Formats: sequence, C-alpha cells, structure tokens
Amino acid sequence: MTENSTAVTVEVVDPIATLTLRAPQRRNPLSKDTMRTATRLLRELDADPQVRVIVIAAEGPAFSAGHDLAEVAGAELDDQREIFGACSDLMLTLHEVRQPVIAKVAGMALAAGCQLVATCDLAIAADTARFSTPGVKIGLFCSTPMVPLTRAVGRKRAMHMLLTGEMIDAATAADWGLINQAVPADELDRAVAQLAASIAASSSATLAIGKRAFYDQIDVSEPAAYELMSETMAVNAVIPDAKEGISAFLEKRPPVWSDR
Amino acid sequence: MTENSTAVTVEVVDPIATLTLRAPQRRNPLSKDTMRTATRLLRELDADPQVRVIVIAAEGPAFSAGHDLAEVAGAELDDQREIFGACSDLMLTLHEVRQPVIAKVAGMALAAGCQLVATCDLAIAADTARFSTPGVKIGLFCSTPMVPLTRAVGRKRAMHMLLTGEMIDAATAADWGLINQAVPADELDRAVAQLAASIAASSSATLAIGKRAFYDQIDVSEPAAYELMSETMAVNAVIPDAKEGISAFLEKRPPVWSDR
Amino acid sequence: MTENSTAVTVEVVDPIATLTLRAPQRRNPLSKDTMRTATRLLRELDADPQVRVIVIAAEGPAFSAGHDLAEVAGAELDDQREIFGACSDLMLTLHEVRQPVIAKVAGMALAAGCQLVATCDLAIAADTARFSTPGVKIGLFCSTPMVPLTRAVGRKRAMHMLLTGEMIDAATAADWGLINQAVPADELDRAVAQLAASIAASSSATLAIGKRAFYDQIDVSEPAAYELMSETMAVNAVIPDAKEGISAFLEKRPPVWSDR
Repeated sequence: MTENSTAVTVEVVDPIATLTLRAPQRRNPLSKDTMRTATRLLRELDADPQVRVIVIAAEGPAFSAGHDLAEVAGAELDDQREIFGACSDLMLTLHEVRQPVIAKVAGMALAAGCQLVATCDLAIAADTARFSTPGVKIGLFCSTPMVPLTRAVGRKRAMHMLLTGEMIDAATAADWGLINQAVPADELDRAVAQLAASIAASSSATLAIGKRAFYDQIDVSEPAAYELMSETMAVNAVIPDAKEGISAFLEKRPPVWSDR
Repeated sequence: MTENSTAVTVEVVDPIATLTLRAPQRRNPLSKDTMRTATRLLRELDADPQVRVIVIAAEGPAFSAGHDLAEVAGAELDDQREIFGACSDLMLTLHEVRQPVIAKVAGMALAAGCQLVATCDLAIAADTARFSTPGVKIGLFCSTPMVPLTRAVGRKRAMHMLLTGEMIDAATAADWGLINQAVPADELDRAVAQLAASIAASSSATLAIGKRAFYDQIDVSEPAAYELMSETMAVNAVIPDAKEGISAFLEKRPPVWSDR
Repeated sequence: MTENSTAVTVEVVDPIATLTLRAPQRRNPLSKDTMRTATRLLRELDADPQVRVIVIAAEGPAFSAGHDLAEVAGAELDDQREIFGACSDLMLTLHEVRQPVIAKVAGMALAAGCQLVATCDLAIAADTARFSTPGVKIGLFCSTPMVPLTRAVGRKRAMHMLLTGEMIDAATAADWGLINQAVPADELDRAVAQLAASIAASSSATLAIGKRAFYDQIDVSEPAAYELMSETMAVNAVIPDAKEGISAFLEKRPPVWSDR
C-alpha cells in the first residue's frame, strides 16, 4: 500500500507502517496541509489491524525544519490558530494511535521537527543528526515544541534550548532522553528496523492497551495512576493474548497471538 | 524481632528494619499473599518508633521476578483485581510509611520486582543486577510497573523498556535514575548499611515530616507545592528536634534527638 | 543604576541586570529581609523594559548557605511562616518576572541557596561549586528546597540529597540537570556573560511570552498544555517582533527588534 498526498506518504510492509515526509528540497516543512494529511494517515493506520508499529521518517538529509515559515509569515491570527491547532492535533494523534510510533531521524530536526521527535514514543537518530528549538531567534518562541521537549529533557535543559536556540547533537539528545539512541548514520535503517520488528513481535492487543495506559497514567497523581493501572492490568490479564502468553511462558513454548 | 509469614520476613537491628523476600528458589515472586504480608509488615514498622529506616532485600541471586504467574494464569477478572489491587496497595504503602525505604538489589528485578525498586525512596544495586519490564512479551503489559518507572526514568526510556521488554544493567539504571548507585556485588551489604546508618543518624520526627512532604508536593503544581511546603517547613521549624538541631549547629556541638 | 539594601544589590549594564547577594562574610544568608528585598528588586526589574536578562550572583567564595539560622532559631510559628512565606514568594517571583534568570554559582549553594539555583531558569557554576540540602542534619528537613530540586533532578536523586544531606559537586549537578553547565572557575564570568548576551540578543517581547508560557504549560496535562500553547503560539506569531523576525529570516537579513 502506498498513499501519497501533500508531501507525506505511507508505506506498509508486513506489520510496520512507515510515514515519510517527502519534501526534502525544502527540508520537509510541516505545512498545515502536511500536518493534516499526516494526522489523517495516522488515523487510518490506527484503524488498520495489520499495522503493529509506525515509523515516522523523512526523505533527504534533514528530518524536518519545522513549520512552513512562508505560510506562517503572511497569516492573520485566525490562520495562525489553524496552523498551530493542526500541529497540536498531529502531536496528540501520535499519542492516541494504538501503535507505538518510532521517529527515525537522519538529519536536522528543528522547531516543530524537534517537537515531532520529542512526541514520538521512541526515537533513533543518526549520530550526525542535530536538534534545536530556534524560534526565539526569529521572534516566535517555540511554545508548542516546548510541551513535549520539557517533558522529555527536563526543565533546565529545555530552557537552555528554548532561550538560546542552540543546536544539540545526537549524543547529547540521547544523554538527555530526547531520543533513545544515536547510531552511525549507515546503521540507522537497520537499527530502526530491528527495534520495530522487536516490538511488532508482541501482541498488538497488548501493545494497544499498554500505549493507551502510558498516556492515561502519565499526567495524573501517582495514587490516581495506580487506581487506573490496577484496573488496566486486571482487564489486560484476562484477554486471550495474555492467557496465551502466560500459558506459553509457563509451558516454555513460543506464544501464538490472536492476530497472526 | 523476626516475623515470618508467606515468604517475607522482617528483622530489626537497632534502628534499621530489613524486610526480606524469602522464596529464592522461585525468584521471590510477589504473590498476592506475599504482597499483603509485606504491606501489613510495613504498616507495623510504620507504627514502631524504634525503626528509623527500612531496607527491602531479597534472598538468593534474584531480587524478584515479579508477580506469581501461576497465580495470575488461572485467575478470573475479580481475582486479577485483587492481585493488582494488592500490588498497588504495597507500592503506595512504601510511600506512606514514615521511614525512608531503601531497595537492596543483588540480582534481577523484573516486572513488579522492577516496580518495587522504582517505588522505594532509594535503591542501591550490585553491578550485576538487571532490570526489565518484560510483560509485553507474554501479552500482559507492565502497566502498574509503568507508574513508578516513568516517574523515575522519564518517557522515552520507560517506553523503550516497556515496549521491548529488554533488560538494562545496573550502570544504566543508575545513569537513568532508576537506582541511586551500582556497586560491586561484594560491597552491596556495606553500601546499603552505610546509607541506612547515615539516614538513621537523623531525627526520626524530621525524617517522617520530610518523607511525607516529598510525596505531598510531588504531584501538585509548583505554586501549590510551595503553599504546602512553606507551612510544612514552618511547622517543622518549631518541633523540639529542629530547635535542638539548630541550637546544636549554632553552638557547634552534636545534636541529641528526642528519640534517643 | 545601583540599588543597595539589606545585603542585596542590583546593577544594570546594558540589557543585563545582575542581582548580587552581598554578605560574603556570613556566606550570603537568605534572611527574611534579604529575600523580601530581592523579591522587590525583581519586581522592579520585571517592570523595566531596558532589562532583557537577569543574573543572580553572590559575592565571595560561597553562593549562599541558605536561610539565616540565627533568625530561624528564635522564631515562633507565626514568624516561621513569615520567613518561609518570604522564601516561597522569592522563588515564585523568579518564575514570574518576564526576563530569563541565570544563576551564577561560584561556590557552595546549600539548602535555600541550592533551592535558588534549582529555581532559576538557567544556571552555570564553577566546577568548584558544591550543592546540598543538609537540613535533615539539623532537624529541619529541606521541604521548600525540595520543590524545585525534585523537579530538576528527579525523584531518586532528590531523595538521596534530602535524606542524607550529602554534597554533590558541580559536574554531578550538571549531569543531573540541576545546573546547565560547570566551567572552570576562572571562566565563570565569561560563560555567564556569553549566555546572557546570547539570550539578550532576542526580542524581549518574545522572551517574555516564552518564559510565561514555559511555566503555564509545565504543571498541566499534555492535552491542556497543547491547548494553551497553540493559542500562545498563534498570538506570538502576529506580534510585530515575530513578523519582523520571520521576514528577516526569509529575506536573509538580521532582524531589528521593536525595543532597540
């Protein structure tokens, strides 16, 4: 399956879907149309039981330079609201889809491009990749990128990136928890494929329960989180894939999930 | 004092209580009975003014392999609710007891075993210890372990452990903030004893105020936290042990706490 | 401009204001008067359109040893409430002023002194600086310092500092995210000046929007944060400095901000 619209494509190979930004000559800007298309494609993947993992990739040397400044430049307040609303919709959708989402970052991820990396459940980058939130330098503070950035790297480090607009390299991004791993550029494909395959080996019903649970519990108090998660875990424990998985484990045999 | 019930014992030596999981041949599973006993023992320690620090330890090469899968395997939904409810009760109790709790981790800490380490106020592990949340591999996502895990190691790293079930070693656990320190295996006893003694040298009234304050302020907004903590600090400042501690400091002499 | 009151001075050089604690012989204690004066001076700087960055510095080898224990020692509960209320007011004011605030830490930062470093938006320390929250040793748990400390370094590390009162060195503080950077002592002046100048090169209207947005979004759920930040970003995008900044960027020329 290949769908192509407004510089975003989706390709599904076995249980892995790859959503690719395809405007490399413009460093893959996140225009309003691109973001809306990406959101729509993610919702379609969410509904596709064949897809167990989603990879977000980009064509060319840059991952994404962020919003389309030509579009932002001329816009009135209501248009700005549409642009940034579309951006927030995309980011929240990345958390709402049932599949784990991995960012595959070959090059620069700036502003909303950096936000996209911070928002994905997991991220692997080439060691040549770079990250920054440089909006402050053009008078437009990276306030929406700040949301996942502060939650990934913590206060002092997020403040430094936001107030100075300075680049950090991939090793620093891994050290700070913005990405999971920095690998040599020529190993990026293999590292992402291995991670995706490793996750896709699990039950998709279980992955969906777990991903939803992650975001359900992350923003509430710990006692409230335990109340939610105790129930989630009890309900998870009686689904067919959990019964099969536990039986298989106790019988020392590989499990056979319901969807394959 | 030694109490023994369902594979959990408590031993109190001077002001340090050690609660030990004692089913090493089964890798110290957290059965419903074991968790309930541990919770009850912790409540008893909470009420014991002689105890100033609690250590959670385990017999044998593994710390804990997590829930008792044989018990989970056959259970109906209501039984699952009891199991995971007992687990959440234990974890919340670790935060509620007045004494600081240190996990002493000699070996593998998996699933709810990893959760137990993440939940303790402090943790020291042998450098040979390993940590993972592998539930995803058996169809049962580690949703309750996720609660303290995400709050200890952050989003991307928690997601990686939860979605892949991969082990991390003790050095990585220390780097990520899941534990405080990894030490050579033959220095674990001494390192934990030193840490416990160093904490037990403080006023138990002050430790109790501080521990409660920690969890009171951690899940609220910063302005709300300051409102709570300003009052906590003012009230703390007029208790006898604070008056004694401040006087002793100003007079350059050791303090004498009210409980000893 | 130089204002001097109760051991705190403010000096403004170009767009950088430096607020300096000036009781080095007593290791710069944060007495009630000192904290109230600092709060008042910060409010004045907040209202001064010429000031684009604030540096918090201290005279002498220590940054600050924390509260004035002689003052705390004799105080009744109502007086304690005034002292710790004044402290929390100062800390919240550091977040409320429109300008980014950088802590410049040449030496020891203890208790409320450590809190001050944790609270500033950014911090650079000499590699000889040391940090601790030693209140537990004198019976007065560092409950107010705990608020920004836990939010900067995470749970296990904050607990260790709070429960033991042990010092950490500047390299550890940088590794844990308590400060942004540790530099050789003789480079501290230059490093702070460079960071301040780099931030002051941006539009002060944009910095003010960004700083306020940071604290608006940090304590709410991620969906609520996105709702707030989408609007913040849309409104930011139509201010004159954003229009100028984006135009300048697209035209490959330096921007000219409205305030200079």
